[in-house]
Amino acid sequence: MTPPSNRREITGFSNPTVKYLRSLREKKHRKAAGKFLAEGLRLLTDARECGHIPETLVMAAARESHPLLDELERAVASAGGEVIETTPDILSKITGKANPQAVAGVFTEFDTSLATLDRSAAPIWLVAQELRDPGNLGTTLRTGDAVGAGGLILIDDCADPFSVEAVRASMGAIFTQHIARARWDEFLPWLRTGTGQLVAASLRDAVPYRGAPYAAPCFILVGNESQGLPEEYEAACDLRVTMPMKGRADSLNAAMAGAVLAYEVLASFDS
Amino acid sequence: MTPPSNRREITGFSNPTVKYLRSLREKKHRKAAGKFLAEGLRLLTDARECGHIPETLVMAAARESHPLLDELERAVASAGGEVIETTPDILSKITGKANPQAVAGVFTEFDTSLATLDRSAAPIWLVAQELRDPGNLGTTLRTGDAVGAGGLILIDDCADPFSVEAVRASMGAIFTQHIARARWDEFLPWLRTGTGQLVAASLRDAVPYRGAPYAAPCFILVGNESQGLPEEYEAACDLRVTMPMKGRADSLNAAMAGAVLAYEVLASFDS
Repeated sequence: MTPPSNRREITGFSNPTVKYLRSLREKKHRKAAGKFLAEGLRLLTDARECGHIPETLVMAAARESHPLLDELERAVASAGGEVIETTPDILSKITGKANPQAVAGVFTEFDTSLATLDRSAAPIWLVAQELRDPGNLGTTLRTGDAVGAGGLILIDDCADPFSVEAVRASMGAIFTQHIARARWDEFLPWLRTGTGQLVAASLRDAVPYRGAPYAAPCFILVGNESQGLPEEYEAACDLRVTMPMKGRADSLNAAMAGAVLAYEVLASFDS
Repeated sequence: MTPPSNRREITGFSNPTVKYLRSLREKKHRKAAGKFLAEGLRLLTDARECGHIPETLVMAAARESHPLLDELERAVASAGGEVIETTPDILSKITGKANPQAVAGVFTEFDTSLATLDRSAAPIWLVAQELRDPGNLGTTLRTGDAVGAGGLILIDDCADPFSVEAVRASMGAIFTQHIARARWDEFLPWLRTGTGQLVAASLRDAVPYRGAPYAAPCFILVGNESQGLPEEYEAACDLRVTMPMKGRADSLNAAMAGAVLAYEVLASFDS
């Protein structure tokens, strides 16, 4: 049995809560509220299992029951959150999806300051500079999860990790990976306050990425999708590695290069 | 000097050529016409350098001159193609971009039958099953280009490789990589008519992907983004390999897994 919760039903499009929830699809409103949306039962279950319970859970009033949804409702109720039941039409306006079985949760954005990172917590950290595409950002979080990274550090002007697209592409890794955001001139001094090897995929003055002397905690720095890393950023790295590029196209997709490099670092630590 | 070409100016939105060009953004119209659109001077230059000249080149009547654009115009004229000059507004309707410096070309879709592939032409081939996302498809073409693959074989129901999104994400690799499309029950018999090792990233009965006995020509099979490979497809493979998954999320993005595996195969061949 689901315990009684702070539960209400909303049937009007002009309801202020509906407007608020829809507004979270836009960055300025997310920023103002300090909240973000995550959608889908699987994603919300991943969140719950990582200890992240939505403050507000939104779902269709008429829906098939599901044990994982029941668990989610119980968790929200226990945490003092609110459950909103609404119509399929309103739900699809909020989630942007036509699926009437959809469920969405509202979470408080995490603290993304560098000070929250414990570099000793993991052997690998991913660092992305000016990663503009939210899908690439989410995929990079997922890569971090796969290689057992501690988190993703976003340098300079990156896409918003709390955007619906990034959260969706992360496939739940938004809840397993720490996220920090910093300018380069904050990041580099922070890095140098402790141990940490900064590694860049580079074409300049670099050693082959296979068998390079990686050391934990290893911070893998990947540049912008089209521009690559600024020269002075590469110069500040402890290790520059090259990957073979056999073809005509200039370079691998930045997220791909990060994944290949992260797996190489993982293999070097495991061997 | 640009030689005289089959050149005309179009200023009306209702011009049938404008309608035709816009229609190529939709799959059914591409299929009916057997043509596709590629956009951007860099992409069209890559195409030209690979011997692919657009039949029709579209650009703004008022634009800055560029030596690569001049070369492109000459190539189109020499090949008997047509150059269309139009207004920035019409151009952005065709390309879907606001950039008035944009340029777009119309190409004939390539023959994507298996019979056109020469498996001895490259040591690595990528094979994707039910790859649904055109961006992932384009990125996978780019990965193929980076590792020196011969091409990409699309199995069962995949995204359209000639869609504007896939072409754009390929960053020119659509013109360097062979593309074939086949059902599984055509592909497997074709594969078995010659040498070729079929390798899958798998969780079942698999060996570690590092140091596995890869052999050229190596066909790297990657499954659908959310479902993975059907069991019988995996069973038909010559080699099943696993990649470490340290995290909570089920699996790496399929395109990522393909890239990591392709780089491993490349390293094993180069060493």
